[in-house]
Amino acid sequence: MKPIRFALLGCGTVGSGVVELTTRNAAYLAARIGAPLELARIVVRDKSKARKVDPALLSTDADAAIADPSIDIVVEVVGGEDPAGRWLEEALRRGKSVVTANKSLLAVRGPALLSLAAEHKVDLAFEASVGGAIPVIRTLRDHLVADWVRSLRGIVNGTCNYILTRMRDESASFDSVLAAAQELGYAEAEPSLDVDGHDAAHKLCVLALLAYGAAVKPSEVPTEGIRAIEPIDHRFAARFGFGIKHLAVARETKDRSLDLRVHPALVPARAPLASVDGVLNAIAIEADGAGSQVLVGRGAGSLPTAVSVVADLVDVARNRRAGVAGLLTHGLDITRRPLAAPQSQEAIWYLRMRVADRPGVLAQIAGALGKHEVSIEQLVQEGGGGRRAVDRTGTADESRVIVMLTHDAVERDVRAALDYVDAQPFVHGRSLALRVES
Amino acid sequence: MKPIRFALLGCGTVGSGVVELTTRNAAYLAARIGAPLELARIVVRDKSKARKVDPALLSTDADAAIADPSIDIVVEVVGGEDPAGRWLEEALRRGKSVVTANKSLLAVRGPALLSLAAEHKVDLAFEASVGGAIPVIRTLRDHLVADWVRSLRGIVNGTCNYILTRMRDESASFDSVLAAAQELGYAEAEPSLDVDGHDAAHKLCVLALLAYGAAVKPSEVPTEGIRAIEPIDHRFAARFGFGIKHLAVARETKDRSLDLRVHPALVPARAPLASVDGVLNAIAIEADGAGSQVLVGRGAGSLPTAVSVVADLVDVARNRRAGVAGLLTHGLDITRRPLAAPQSQEAIWYLRMRVADRPGVLAQIAGALGKHEVSIEQLVQEGGGGRRAVDRTGTADESRVIVMLTHDAVERDVRAALDYVDAQPFVHGRSLALRVES
Repeated sequence: MKPIRFALLGCGTVGSGVVELTTRNAAYLAARIGAPLELARIVVRDKSKARKVDPALLSTDADAAIADPSIDIVVEVVGGEDPAGRWLEEALRRGKSVVTANKSLLAVRGPALLSLAAEHKVDLAFEASVGGAIPVIRTLRDHLVADWVRSLRGIVNGTCNYILTRMRDESASFDSVLAAAQELGYAEAEPSLDVDGHDAAHKLCVLALLAYGAAVKPSEVPTEGIRAIEPIDHRFAARFGFGIKHLAVARETKDRSLDLRVHPALVPARAPLASVDGVLNAIAIEADGAGSQVLVGRGAGSLPTAVSVVADLVDVARNRRAGVAGLLTHGLDITRRPLAAPQSQEAIWYLRMRVADRPGVLAQIAGALGKHEVSIEQLVQEGGGGRRAVDRTGTADESRVIVMLTHDAVERDVRAALDYVDAQPFVHGRSLALRVES
Repeated sequence: MKPIRFALLGCGTVGSGVVELTTRNAAYLAARIGAPLELARIVVRDKSKARKVDPALLSTDADAAIADPSIDIVVEVVGGEDPAGRWLEEALRRGKSVVTANKSLLAVRGPALLSLAAEHKVDLAFEASVGGAIPVIRTLRDHLVADWVRSLRGIVNGTCNYILTRMRDESASFDSVLAAAQELGYAEAEPSLDVDGHDAAHKLCVLALLAYGAAVKPSEVPTEGIRAIEPIDHRFAARFGFGIKHLAVARETKDRSLDLRVHPALVPARAPLASVDGVLNAIAIEADGAGSQVLVGRGAGSLPTAVSVVADLVDVARNRRAGVAGLLTHGLDITRRPLAAPQSQEAIWYLRMRVADRPGVLAQIAGALGKHEVSIEQLVQEGGGGRRAVDRTGTADESRVIVMLTHDAVERDVRAALDYVDAQPFVHGRSLALRVES
């Protein structure tokens, strides 16, 4: 039986997992595919690096691997837009099916790559691009094919979730937990891609492709990270019955525009997402027919991600073997869809501000919120202890913290109210506004 | 474009959902399949019953629908072993692909049906047979194709989960909650299939097919229901930091035999399964590569189940259209596998007994347990209040309750110890033993 041959571009954490799983399970995978799966080439930047793979397979020439007519499938686990984008376009143009874990590439060029795959009647599979081992791409692409996704909320960045979990459990600051996470390898030396929400925004764009057939650019997704969260926010959130999670959210509004955003949010303590801690990822899907679904699993790591890559590889190889490449995403209709106007949506908000401990401050804040149509549902004041008010140079110790939950309020009004409040001399630093997502 | 034609056998709760979803999403499904999907025949028992379907499609003759050469796919949502089994065998033999939601049929004849499908190179898909809207079949069959499932724990019977949840929340007895559930339609008039665990055992057999390639009969699965659970068990479980859930469990033992069982169990209060309440279902999978995964969703209902049926229908129709029927389960190797010897496995146990309030009773019980190699990790005694001991005709009010958690103990030893204890005159009624599953 003629083997199905694949080239592996990249042999780092995920790539070495792919080698391990395809080697270990070779006989079973061959049975499921109907032909042996042959690892034909491993393309790396540096051939001299020590690796547990057959050195005869190693090459530094991606273009040659892609041009090799005996190679059926290209598996890309390098990441980044360039050169991976160029490689995958070339592979698709040459009629090879592609498996990729590259969320940043898909977020920007997903629609173009999907049409290229359709044009050349080959498969493009990307389970590993979102949620590591979680079968969320498969679920959206195939399982909910006859359903309508009302909303989707994902904990899709393990670094953010790990940091928030430790901040909560240890009452520790963002900076100290970030430093610890960097030491443990759970956060990058340059952490911005993760902790400022960009990675989650990439993943949200990939999810929006399948949940809504929507071509959205990461730059169109309002994105906030977790740097503004403080240990007291976890404490107050818990007091109100919530946990704080960094979420990627996609939902259809009443007028069927798409409301996409990435930000930390309060989730009810009893909601399934609230108990997803540490480096775990999860995606909660509300669909019209299926109702609520939650998928929880490891969001990163060598074997968890490789499990998703190899599952795609088997799908793609099986189609290839049967002579029907291109079935996986056949008929997916990716279009530009109207996005909800910025800051146009309503939510219940958690607001936290530090103010000087001075009579009349609360009245002025309540007045400012009221003027902006933001109505307070409940409120807690803490600290102060009778000390004199301090000016803008005062530290947190010398101020009171006011925390509140609002009634439903439009984001634009909340932001305007806080801009006004933050400009007052009795307010210290920047106030925080987090949505309640339930 | 020549349509793909399917016959629907059964048009009850699930069948009407299938009609609704395929009608509502006809254009999109046609795009994904590459051909229109045509509902060619609806086979029902009673044509005169009021239904929201085209009456011209209705028929009472399943055999004629199956024999019709213009029909490509048979979708069966009738349930039960007979005549569904005969129909599906005939359909497969005639080269039609089959989609079924029939767990009791698959539990008994799954291996035979799968080999029939392989022999005739057609697809057999059954996502809706376990977990309603949850994509667990797809996950085990395709997503974890290169992984090794260490264990699988499922809340797969919504009736049991609903009853246990209400018993816990309302401190109510099994009988009263069962009656309420029957009134609400969450339990059948004849509830045994659900509350005695047989339905969950059927589903476990289906899951074992895909997770372990194992042909197991429901009669080989040690099966307990939830009738013996009392409200005090929920209270004590909570005190020890657990919730009580009715689980279907499959795991590989150290000697690679399969340990399969269905029973109520204690799960840690913080574990994802503990928060799966009411009619929700969930499956927690521990896999070697992917790590821990949890899938949560609606376990029953018209549209939730139909979502799974139609997802299968689209897979099967797409393969059919491409001329490659039979790919879905290609190469699945279903064999008889050694099962763990009955009562041979170790666990931590929750034991609850009612005893006469008499001096020395606890010492005798501890002695009996010790003699059977069952060691107590913690113990709580409650009730009694100094009243005199009563004999076997005494009611619960006049006795003490002793509840304990053991250290790891072999089931056979625990059962033998309890048999001995229950035969003592100072023990009232039957003692309860529940595993801790964590």
